[in-house]
Amino acid sequence: MFLDTQKRPPRTLRYVEKAFKEVKSRKNVRDVVILNDRGNPVKSTMDQDDAVQLAGLFQAIRGRLERGMSKIDPTDELLMLRVRTKTNEVILVPDSKITVLVVQNAHDNFEK
Amino acid sequence: MFLDTQKRPPRTLRYVEKAFKEVKSRKNVRDVVILNDRGNPVKSTMDQDDAVQLAGLFQAIRGRLERGMSKIDPTDELLMLRVRTKTNEVILVPDSKITVLVVQNAHDNFEK
Repeated sequence: MFLDTQKRPPRTLRYVEKAFKEVKSRKNVRDVVILNDRGNPVKSTMDQDDAVQLAGLFQAIRGRLERGMSKIDPTDELLMLRVRTKTNEVILVPDSKITVLVVQNAHDNFEK
Repeated sequence: MFLDTQKRPPRTLRYVEKAFKEVKSRKNVRDVVILNDRGNPVKSTMDQDDAVQLAGLFQAIRGRLERGMSKIDPTDELLMLRVRTKTNEVILVPDSKITVLVVQNAHDNFEK
């Protein structure tokens, strides 16, 4: 009401930083992209174009999935989406505030 | 050329039966839907309407994903798609001949 920051509490930034740091430190994690509640990348290890491309694709799939799921069972809720390919695994985890996208190496020894 | 069955070799049916049986026997597997190369359910534990609805949704997501992936890395290939929700986990595994959709219980003790 008085301040713009009330709409987007300061905790959000700390929350993003915390999630980013935690996920990034995990073994085999190659890239991390944190999306805000509008689906835009707000923090990422990738360059901006790549982050936007990946985020756009996964947000589109998530949207399609959630629309489809709501027809099958409106009470159900998406917790995690994992896409395993020959070269990597992309994991999307929605959260109340943010969405975390993680790119993992497909093989433990891929870049080691 | 001489027989219609040459287009769709008899092995396909045995392959479907084998995959169906193998996947169905696994722990926590609730439902199995086998799709042919056109994305239509050919064998399923679900009733036909539910199988078609689930197959339609997951084929749509897969299509969107593969189109998006080909822009990011044309040499990459989808091996597995997993969707974890509050109540279950749906796994899509493409194969050269068929696509296997598996619905697993989210909780080990969900129906036990």
